[in-house]
Amino acid sequence: MITRLSHLFLRTLRDDPADAEVASHRLLVRAGYVRRIAPGVYSWLPLGLRVLRKVEQVVRQEMDAMGAQEISLPALLPREPYETTRRWTEYGDALFRLQDRKQADYLLGPTHEELFALTVKGEYNSYKDLPVTLYQIQNKYRDEERPRAGILRGREFIMKDSYSFDLDEAGLARSYAAHRETYQRILARLGVRYVIVSATSGAMGGSASEEFLAESPVGEDTYVRSLESGYAANVEAVVTPAPAPLPLGGLPPAVVHDTPDTPTIAALVAWAESAKVVDRRVSAADTLKNVMVKLRHPDGKSEIVGIGIPGDREVDEKRLGAAVEPAEVELLTEADFAANPFLVKGYIGPKALLDNGIRYLVDPRVGTGTRWITGADEPGRHVVGLVAGRDFVPDGTIEAAEVRDGDPSPDGHGTLVAARGIEIGHIFQLGYKYTDAFEVDVLGENGKPVRLVMGSYGIGVSRMVAVVAEQQHDDKGLRWPSEIAPFDVHVVIANKDESARAGAEQVVAGLDARGLDVLFDDRTASPGVKFKDAELLGMPWVLVVGRGWAEGKVELRDRFTGAVEEIDAQAAVDAVVARIRG
Amino acid sequence: MITRLSHLFLRTLRDDPADAEVASHRLLVRAGYVRRIAPGVYSWLPLGLRVLRKVEQVVRQEMDAMGAQEISLPALLPREPYETTRRWTEYGDALFRLQDRKQADYLLGPTHEELFALTVKGEYNSYKDLPVTLYQIQNKYRDEERPRAGILRGREFIMKDSYSFDLDEAGLARSYAAHRETYQRILARLGVRYVIVSATSGAMGGSASEEFLAESPVGEDTYVRSLESGYAANVEAVVTPAPAPLPLGGLPPAVVHDTPDTPTIAALVAWAESAKVVDRRVSAADTLKNVMVKLRHPDGKSEIVGIGIPGDREVDEKRLGAAVEPAEVELLTEADFAANPFLVKGYIGPKALLDNGIRYLVDPRVGTGTRWITGADEPGRHVVGLVAGRDFVPDGTIEAAEVRDGDPSPDGHGTLVAARGIEIGHIFQLGYKYTDAFEVDVLGENGKPVRLVMGSYGIGVSRMVAVVAEQQHDDKGLRWPSEIAPFDVHVVIANKDESARAGAEQVVAGLDARGLDVLFDDRTASPGVKFKDAELLGMPWVLVVGRGWAEGKVELRDRFTGAVEEIDAQAAVDAVVARIRG
Repeated sequence: MITRLSHLFLRTLRDDPADAEVASHRLLVRAGYVRRIAPGVYSWLPLGLRVLRKVEQVVRQEMDAMGAQEISLPALLPREPYETTRRWTEYGDALFRLQDRKQADYLLGPTHEELFALTVKGEYNSYKDLPVTLYQIQNKYRDEERPRAGILRGREFIMKDSYSFDLDEAGLARSYAAHRETYQRILARLGVRYVIVSATSGAMGGSASEEFLAESPVGEDTYVRSLESGYAANVEAVVTPAPAPLPLGGLPPAVVHDTPDTPTIAALVAWAESAKVVDRRVSAADTLKNVMVKLRHPDGKSEIVGIGIPGDREVDEKRLGAAVEPAEVELLTEADFAANPFLVKGYIGPKALLDNGIRYLVDPRVGTGTRWITGADEPGRHVVGLVAGRDFVPDGTIEAAEVRDGDPSPDGHGTLVAARGIEIGHIFQLGYKYTDAFEVDVLGENGKPVRLVMGSYGIGVSRMVAVVAEQQHDDKGLRWPSEIAPFDVHVVIANKDESARAGAEQVVAGLDARGLDVLFDDRTASPGVKFKDAELLGMPWVLVVGRGWAEGKVELRDRFTGAVEEIDAQAAVDAVVARIRG
Repeated sequence: MITRLSHLFLRTLRDDPADAEVASHRLLVRAGYVRRIAPGVYSWLPLGLRVLRKVEQVVRQEMDAMGAQEISLPALLPREPYETTRRWTEYGDALFRLQDRKQADYLLGPTHEELFALTVKGEYNSYKDLPVTLYQIQNKYRDEERPRAGILRGREFIMKDSYSFDLDEAGLARSYAAHRETYQRILARLGVRYVIVSATSGAMGGSASEEFLAESPVGEDTYVRSLESGYAANVEAVVTPAPAPLPLGGLPPAVVHDTPDTPTIAALVAWAESAKVVDRRVSAADTLKNVMVKLRHPDGKSEIVGIGIPGDREVDEKRLGAAVEPAEVELLTEADFAANPFLVKGYIGPKALLDNGIRYLVDPRVGTGTRWITGADEPGRHVVGLVAGRDFVPDGTIEAAEVRDGDPSPDGHGTLVAARGIEIGHIFQLGYKYTDAFEVDVLGENGKPVRLVMGSYGIGVSRMVAVVAEQQHDDKGLRWPSEIAPFDVHVVIANKDESARAGAEQVVAGLDARGLDVLFDDRTASPGVKFKDAELLGMPWVLVVGRGWAEGKVELRDRFTGAVEEIDAQAAVDAVVARIRG
C-alpha cells in the first residue's frame, strides 16, 4: 500500500505544544499523530491511528494465542451492578456518571469486572465450561484528577482488559501465569523495556497482583528493586521488614523533658544531642513523628487517624493513599485541631491519641521494645525513652513511610534502589470479590454448586503508543519499531530532477508489490524539509532517491542507528525487504 | 483458524427473548451473538463480534478505496463546539450530557460534524490541501426515546461517519457522488437489498440529502416510490405537488350554515351530502381540517400553530416532526384551549386563527382558488365555499399530511407506492453550516480566503449486522453471506464413531491449512442438537462428517438454498474451498 505525503492528512509542527511536558507528548503532537480535544481527551490522526491499530493487533494476536476469547461490552453501563459491588461510590470522582432521559443512572466503564462476572453467569452453568478467559479491546473512561502527558494518562483511552474464571485457586494461578507470560510476549514484540513489580490491589479488591512498569524517568510510578535478588515492587506495595520484638524487661522508664522551641524534628534532634538524654548519638531516626490525617470513608464518614513514623522519614502520599483505600486522605483543618484540643501541634505523642480514642497506626519499624523520643502532648515538652509495647500499644501498623534507596530489601537480600516507571499492565488474582457479589456459580462435577474464582488483567493500548514513543525517541523525533511503525518504509524524493521522481515512483511501486506499506514523500518541498519530517515521523527505514539516482544509487537510512548506506538502485527493493523481514 | 464449539464462549437459547419483536433481534440473542445490558445497550459475544468486525472491514476497505482517510475522534466531547452550532440544545433529550469532576459540560458524540470541521481547520490552511475526506468507525451515542429491536436501534452503536471538505459546490457534488457510489459498493458486498430515497436534512442542516433504506417490513422508515419513474423518497421528504393557482373571479361567496352535531369530518360530510350545499358529491377531501399543535422551540419558547389539511387525510407525526425541526411538537392542553377561547373544538376555521395572530400553515393542496367546507369558529356551525387566497390567506404551507399509496408522484410520473425500510445510510450535502460556524477557511489560489463547503455521510455498522440478519434469516435461524459470516464453514461431527471423529479432525485441519476459518462442532451432543445449532448460527456452509465417513463420504449443506450434497471425503477440502472462493 502506498500513501503519498502530498495526500496524507498531516501537518507537522515546527514548535512544541505549550502544554507538553514529556517527549512523547511533544513529538506525537508535533509529528501530527494526535491532537488534543479536551483535557485528557485526544483525537488520533492517520499516523497515530495506524500505530494504535498495530499495537491492538499485537495484543489481540497474543491474547488469542493464549486461548482467550474476544467479546465487546458497552462503555455506557447501568449503575446497578456497580452499586452491588459498591464501586459506584468507591470509585469517587474518577467515575464519569450520567443520567439518561428517564433519569436512570449510568456510568462510563473504567473497568468491567462486574459486567464480565454477569456475562459468564448468564451463559455458563456447568463445570465442564470452565475455565474461560474473555477479553475486550475498548474505550475506557476515568475522570483523572490530573490528566497529563498527552495520551500517557488520558480520560478516554483504550485498554485491553481480560477476565479469567476458574473452578479453584489452582486454576486461577494457572490463568494468572498464562497472562503474565502473554504480557511478556506482547511487550517483547513491542520492544518495550519494563519490569514486573509486586503491586497493591487498590480499589480492585483481591490478593496477588503485579504491575508491568515501562522504565521511564517520566513515569508516575516509583518502584524499587534489589540488585542482589529478583525482588521488585511498586513503592506502594513495599512491605517494610519489621524488626523482631525486643524484650521489654530492664528498659529505663520514659522521662518527660522540657524541650522549648522544638516543634520540628531537626530542632528536637539538636536539643537531644546537646542535652545528652541518651547514651549515644541521636539522629532523626530515634524520634517518633506523629502525623495526623483525616480519612474520608466511602460511606461519607470522616475519621481522624494518627500515624507514627520514624522522624527521619516523610509520609509518602501514594503509599498512604494505597494503604487506606478505599478511604481518601484529607488534611486536618484548623477547625479539626480546635475541636480536638489534646492535639498539640509539634508535640503530639501517642498518649493523647490513645487516651482520646484516636486510631493510632505506626510504621512497622516501631516494633515492640523499640525506644523513641516523641511528643509529650504539651507545648515545648517531649518524652524520651518511650517504649513501644510497654508505654503505648498502637492500634496497628501502616505502610505510609517513604521507601528510600538503601533500605533493606523485604526479601532479605540486599538493599533497594528506586526508579520510575509507567504502568502499562496490571494483573490481579481477584479471588471471589465479584463472583460472590453476583453469586457466579456453576454446577460442579459432584452436582453441587461451585463458586468461580476470578482474575482480572489489563494492558494499556493507547498508552503503549506513548510509552514506545517515550522509550524510543531521540532528539530528532520519533522512532518506531517495525512491528508497530505506521509504515514499513518512508521513501523520499530528494531531487527535483524528473528522472529521480520517476525512479522513486518505480521503487515505491516495487516495494508495494512486495507487500510493504510505503509512506512516499512525493511533495515538492526542499530535501532539508523532507529529511527533517522523515526524522520526526520516525519510520524505521528511510529510502532516499536523490542525486545518486543518475549513477544508479539510492540511500538507505536506519532511523534507529542513524547508519546511512548507499545501495544499488536496482537492488533497493530487495534490500529494504531483507532489512524489514530479517 | 479452527474454533472448537466445545471451547467457544457460546450458549444458544431454545426460547425467544421476551422483549424481542423482530426476527433479527430474536435470532441474534438466541444464537448467542449479542446480549442486552440495558435498554438499547448490548454486548457483542464472540460470534457477533466477528460479524461486526467483518462489516467494519468491508466499510473500511471501500472508504480507503475512495481515497478517504481514517482518523478517530473521541466519543467524549466538550460542550463548546456544540454550543457554537446550537446542537447542544437542538439535539434535545437524544443527547447524552454529563459533567466531569470540575463541573465542565461534556456530551457523548451522536455525530461529529463540529469536531471534523475543527480538525480540518486545525491542520489545513491552503487550497492545495483540498479536497479531503476523513472518516472514522466509532461508538456513537443517542438517547433514543424508544430503543428497539435489539441492535437495530441502540443507544450505543457503531457508525462509520465521514466528512468531505471542498473548495466549492462542484467539489462537494463530486464528493457526494463518490460517497453514494461507495455506499452502493458496500451494500452490494454485504448483500443488502436497499433503495436510495430523497430525505430531509433534519437537525443536520444543509441542502441535498439521500437515505439508503434496507427493504424490510420491520423498518421504522416509510418510503414511497413511483413504479413508473425512478422517484423514491422517505415519506418525510415527499414534497406534495401543489396545484396551479385557480382564478378567484366568479366564485360564489362563502356561506355559513348551521351544522348541528358535526364535530367530526364524517359527520360534516354526511350533513353536506344531505343538505346538498354544493352541486356535486361531497367527500372528506372537500373539507378543510384545522389541527392545532404546540411547537416547543429550542430556545424553550412555545408557539401554538394551526395546520390546515384536507379532511380525508391525517397528520403524519413524522412528516410534521421533520417539517418543524428543530422545534418539537406537543399537544395542546385543556389550559391552552381555555386560554384561547376563540378555538372552538370541532369547529375551528382559518378566520379565528388569522384574526387572533395564530400562525396558520396549510397543506400544499390548499392552493389559491381552492374551495373548502370548514369550521366557522362557532359551535355547530361550518362555512361552505371558503376560498383560499380570497377568504383567507395562510401564513405558508407545511408538509404534514400523510402520503398515501396512489398519490401522484412528485416528479409527475405515475403514482406512489409505500413500503417500509431501515435507515442504514444517510448522505448530506451540508453546505456551509458548520464551516461558517467555525470559520473554516483556507488560502485560495488567488491569495484570498476560501470558505470550505462540507458534506457529511454516515453508514450504520452495528445496525448493518441486524439488517443482514433481518433480510437473510429463515425460520430455522440466521444465514450469513460469506463476506461477513463469523466463520467460512461449520464442520459437524455427526457420529460417535471414533473414526468419524478422527476424520473430522483431519478435514478441519485441511480446511485450516487452506486459510479458512472453521467453526468445528466437536461436542459430544446428539446430531439433532448439532444440526439445529448449525442452522441457528447460520454459517453459509455446513460440512457433516457422519455415518458416511466409513464409505468415504461427507455431506455438504448450503445454508442458503438448503441443498445437501454428498461428496467424496478426500475431495471435501477442495470442494469447500471452491464453493467459498468461487
